[in-house]
Amino acid sequence: MNSIEVAFSPSEFGCFDPKGKIVVVVDILRATSVICTMFKNGVSEIIPVRSIDEAKAYKQKGYMVVAERNGQKLDFADFGNSPFYFTPDKVAGKTIVYSTTNGTNAIMEGSRADRVIIASFLNFSAIRNFLAGSQSDVLVLCAGWKGKFCLEDSIFAGALAHSLIDSGSFSTICDSTNAAIDLWKVASVDISSYLEKVAQRHRLKKLGLDDVIGYCFAIDQTTEIPVLEGGKLVRLS
Amino acid sequence: MNSIEVAFSPSEFGCFDPKGKIVVVVDILRATSVICTMFKNGVSEIIPVRSIDEAKAYKQKGYMVVAERNGQKLDFADFGNSPFYFTPDKVAGKTIVYSTTNGTNAIMEGSRADRVIIASFLNFSAIRNFLAGSQSDVLVLCAGWKGKFCLEDSIFAGALAHSLIDSGSFSTICDSTNAAIDLWKVASVDISSYLEKVAQRHRLKKLGLDDVIGYCFAIDQTTEIPVLEGGKLVRLS
Repeated sequence: MNSIEVAFSPSEFGCFDPKGKIVVVVDILRATSVICTMFKNGVSEIIPVRSIDEAKAYKQKGYMVVAERNGQKLDFADFGNSPFYFTPDKVAGKTIVYSTTNGTNAIMEGSRADRVIIASFLNFSAIRNFLAGSQSDVLVLCAGWKGKFCLEDSIFAGALAHSLIDSGSFSTICDSTNAAIDLWKVASVDISSYLEKVAQRHRLKKLGLDDVIGYCFAIDQTTEIPVLEGGKLVRLS
Repeated sequence: MNSIEVAFSPSEFGCFDPKGKIVVVVDILRATSVICTMFKNGVSEIIPVRSIDEAKAYKQKGYMVVAERNGQKLDFADFGNSPFYFTPDKVAGKTIVYSTTNGTNAIMEGSRADRVIIASFLNFSAIRNFLAGSQSDVLVLCAGWKGKFCLEDSIFAGALAHSLIDSGSFSTICDSTNAAIDLWKVASVDISSYLEKVAQRHRLKKLGLDDVIGYCFAIDQTTEIPVLEGGKLVRLS
């Protein structure tokens, strides 16, 4: 029997021991949904960077750069953080440098673990089946919002934990995992009306960027599993 | 209209701005339940200290000391952390030095705010009515478990937020507050069976210390509101 735990934010992640576990990074609105979309559409690799300065330095070296803070594209960047930008003609075969408000920070935090994979509703079943077959303990790292808890990542964590525990090969004694499962059960009764509570939905709406909401909660749009290797995201082989 | 927010753990508290807000510290199992019991039974003041060394130094100066780590009383201390120790004959009129695994740390973290008060189910309505009349924004700080989220503090936060928002004078756009309210709604259907999930319940059971559970969830046993003033907890005047 393997264990599953949930860190509700990068702030809390430091209190968990990721050693020997698979860390599953989640930033539903929007980083990990965007990353899954890029792999679906054929990106070769993604280089996540924490700081704007690093992203700028890559841009000067000729890389294609995605850089966003507080929802908005930074001036020097090629793209902002909407999944709709990353069509196959733009990303297939490319290396893309990626820096966002919360998601890339969470990915770099997660890199203390043996293995880091990138999850969203878009690759839900692929992630779930990979973990169910992994015989590893699992620690879900929610990117949250500026170090804090956020609802959309937490309900994803609940959906994943619920499904893995239901499979009979996982169990938990972790309060945040049990809370996430309860939240998922409440939310999943009517997910689109539940999303009305989500603060990030309202932040994106204010910026005219909430057209992504339906897409980011669509289950199983791809079977790709992005994995962190040597500081880069590549497809799981 | 005032706002209410919830920090699910001391780790996340650093991401909130407590300026101008009343911070409500909660550690249901057991620190804030114990503190409320001490004030109910007539303690004069409580000096919270973070470290075991500080607690020892106070002991050497002749103070009465409560010191606990991981549920268990430390050798040099006068008392462990069960509310049942603190009967009126032991505490009335006394100054008590207090150091526990999670609760005292949360109190000291909270001291960045303008005002810190101590809450538990035991003084629920007193806290709720005080906040409803305060015209201040409120930030609930859950002590959690070693920096992490815990269920029992979070459902208390949900109960308090639900009641304050229901009163019509508070609102929230904080995801953790909305999550806490949902968890409270799930838990309050049958609180004693819900508590079976709580990890701290099982930690205390292992130590033979779970006789406090029923007591710590009993609502309105006292109208006392402990408040932090100059590094000491005193009764709100």
